[in-house]
Amino acid sequence: MCALDHRGSLQKMLEGVLGRAPVYQDMVDFKLDMCRALSSQSSAMLLDPLFGAAQSIASGLLSSHSGLVVSLEETGYEGDAAARISRELANWSAAKVRRMGADGAKLLLYYRPGVDVAAVQLDLVRKLAADCDAQDLVFVVEPVGYAIGDEASTGRYSTVKPDVVIQTAKDISPLGIDVLKAEFPADLKVEKDEGRMLEFCKRLDGNSEVPWIILSAGVDFSSFQREVEIASKAGASGFLAGRALWQEATSMKTREQRVEFFHTTVVERLRVISALADAYGTPWFERVGAPSIVEGWEAGY
Amino acid sequence: MCALDHRGSLQKMLEGVLGRAPVYQDMVDFKLDMCRALSSQSSAMLLDPLFGAAQSIASGLLSSHSGLVVSLEETGYEGDAAARISRELANWSAAKVRRMGADGAKLLLYYRPGVDVAAVQLDLVRKLAADCDAQDLVFVVEPVGYAIGDEASTGRYSTVKPDVVIQTAKDISPLGIDVLKAEFPADLKVEKDEGRMLEFCKRLDGNSEVPWIILSAGVDFSSFQREVEIASKAGASGFLAGRALWQEATSMKTREQRVEFFHTTVVERLRVISALADAYGTPWFERVGAPSIVEGWEAGY
Repeated sequence: MCALDHRGSLQKMLEGVLGRAPVYQDMVDFKLDMCRALSSQSSAMLLDPLFGAAQSIASGLLSSHSGLVVSLEETGYEGDAAARISRELANWSAAKVRRMGADGAKLLLYYRPGVDVAAVQLDLVRKLAADCDAQDLVFVVEPVGYAIGDEASTGRYSTVKPDVVIQTAKDISPLGIDVLKAEFPADLKVEKDEGRMLEFCKRLDGNSEVPWIILSAGVDFSSFQREVEIASKAGASGFLAGRALWQEATSMKTREQRVEFFHTTVVERLRVISALADAYGTPWFERVGAPSIVEGWEAGY
Repeated sequence: MCALDHRGSLQKMLEGVLGRAPVYQDMVDFKLDMCRALSSQSSAMLLDPLFGAAQSIASGLLSSHSGLVVSLEETGYEGDAAARISRELANWSAAKVRRMGADGAKLLLYYRPGVDVAAVQLDLVRKLAADCDAQDLVFVVEPVGYAIGDEASTGRYSTVKPDVVIQTAKDISPLGIDVLKAEFPADLKVEKDEGRMLEFCKRLDGNSEVPWIILSAGVDFSSFQREVEIASKAGASGFLAGRALWQEATSMKTREQRVEFFHTTVVERLRVISALADAYGTPWFERVGAPSIVEGWEAGY
């Protein structure tokens, strides 16, 4: 599984490139260029409703081979940086995601176990899990941890990150979600012991009640490649990669350069990490089993 | 586009083969064997909710490359053979078709222009068109004409068939449907003039307000091959083929023979008619145009 990153980070990066806030068409073009290059190589594309999802369908650039996962959340968060509250995107819903023909919905959720607002965040997961279940949509939840107190300024967040990611899996995976899109449970800039990283990933695996996949955040590609291999060996069922695959594209001068980069470097990177996931990962259906369809199923569906 | 035929005819044919009414698993096996062989070669499979649609997904045998169209109607009809009334399948709906992740819904509709029950049949099309629109599902309507009075016994139905098929397109295509799955507007056993057949197909084309595709009914494959070529040259946007591709499979002695036949003869037949449709047909998007997605589309969707 591979996909575009969520809209927020791309918007900020394009702003840097363009020297102005990206307009609607800049965002759409970036995502369509990526669909053209990558959707035939991916099991699914994750696109946002504002700039990518409908546009990729209407333009005919989403490969018939590719699934479509559409995000549900508003970019960013409300509240204090140490007590982040995620919101649903206005005028959007799991019902619309289903209606447009997508296969799954995704929630990016800021989450720090134990903080006061954690309960509010879990309620949002439960609410959207019920919405997705009513639509029979695959519900992918992407919890993103954050530092509190002096953890950021002291660099201490790296030390607590494994526990944050693992406890997050324990808190969120039982709430009716289908796939956990997890952060790598270590900071490769600090943690150098591969055995410990594998151990953290195995604890993550043991604490997730659903298949989990690894997200790329903004790490460089070679780090992500290591993360995918370690996570896959610990039980991950793939990856959902964004900036680690294509972040250099946001600093390219012309659209032609960017398109060339997508079709060469990014396709090759995707091939490399897909091979790792195929070689070492755990198929999601081995974890959840196949549904049993019995005669008369349609009446009760 | 290629797909299984609707359940009714298959059930009757399997009954002949098996010497007993086919049980649930016979029907499922037949359809799954076909999905395994053909879904990767087709733009979509048409499957019924009872025996094929959910089973093909749950078994993992529906290719990720293939769309899925699911039927809405009860097999057969109510009322007199000369005044046929189609019914929706009980406990089934466009909403369930959308919820299960299908791309389109299909209605097989017995229809004879001008008979008393024609208005009732058109009401059903309008009702289901509205249901599919609410779900943003592609709605495929397959009108099947029938003889009245002494047309069957005298063989006169062949003479009126072109007008029946063409008038049917005129009556049904404006009712909010997306694709007309049309009968070939001539009987190849009687009509031998290819110029006239092309002319009938062009009149059908001119009377359809939506893209149309050609159905195979139970004609032999070589006849269907001619029909696909002529219809494509007259403006058809493909075919939705059933028994013409695989009817011999229903008289084979073992499942192994049948599977072998699907993977060899049927795949080859599909290749042949796909090449004809590709060479001569009109892409559906040339007829309807691409939707325009403007900034803020998600709020009004």
